[in-house]
Amino acid sequence: MTNDPVILINAFEVPAGQDEQFLMSWERSRDFLRAQPGYLSTRLHRSLAPSADFRYVNVARWESAEAFRAATAQPEFRDQTPSFRFHAALYEVVREDT
Amino acid sequence: MTNDPVILINAFEVPAGQDEQFLMSWERSRDFLRAQPGYLSTRLHRSLAPSADFRYVNVARWESAEAFRAATAQPEFRDQTPSFRFHAALYEVVREDT
Repeated sequence: MTNDPVILINAFEVPAGQDEQFLMSWERSRDFLRAQPGYLSTRLHRSLAPSADFRYVNVARWESAEAFRAATAQPEFRDQTPSFRFHAALYEVVREDT
Repeated sequence: MTNDPVILINAFEVPAGQDEQFLMSWERSRDFLRAQPGYLSTRLHRSLAPSADFRYVNVARWESAEAFRAATAQPEFRDQTPSFRFHAALYEVVREDT
């Protein structure tokens, strides 16, 4: 599966009342990342309930793990202080039923 | 957006070496849920790195929050003891770039 895209899933902890601040920060990162080689697409999810453990979850597709790591290793991205706690990792699909 | 599907995102904490046990447990739940009214599809993701905070993340689509709640409120599902810690919530897509 080496040539399949990889999937970045990033679960964000966003306290109540900070949605607007989160979205501004997320959009800034998205604008940077989508201009990088290997970026394919992204989809940002917001929980229906404000009290979910992860108020926002981003699911993005990249051409490869290497492309994602090269993009996020760039100083403009790497040296930003994250505004919210997050849990990010790269994934592959192991079960699918669509 | 009342008639749009809702998205269940469930992030599982699975200790190293317990992948097989997790997959058996997850497939049992999936088999139950996909037979319920309102189930649309599911996609199970496994992290490339074994040490990710969430080794598995399930992203499933349901016709509505009501359909999902009715399915998971059934005794066969509700009375199972979860085998792994998880963080589940229903979501809607708020930003998309595909």
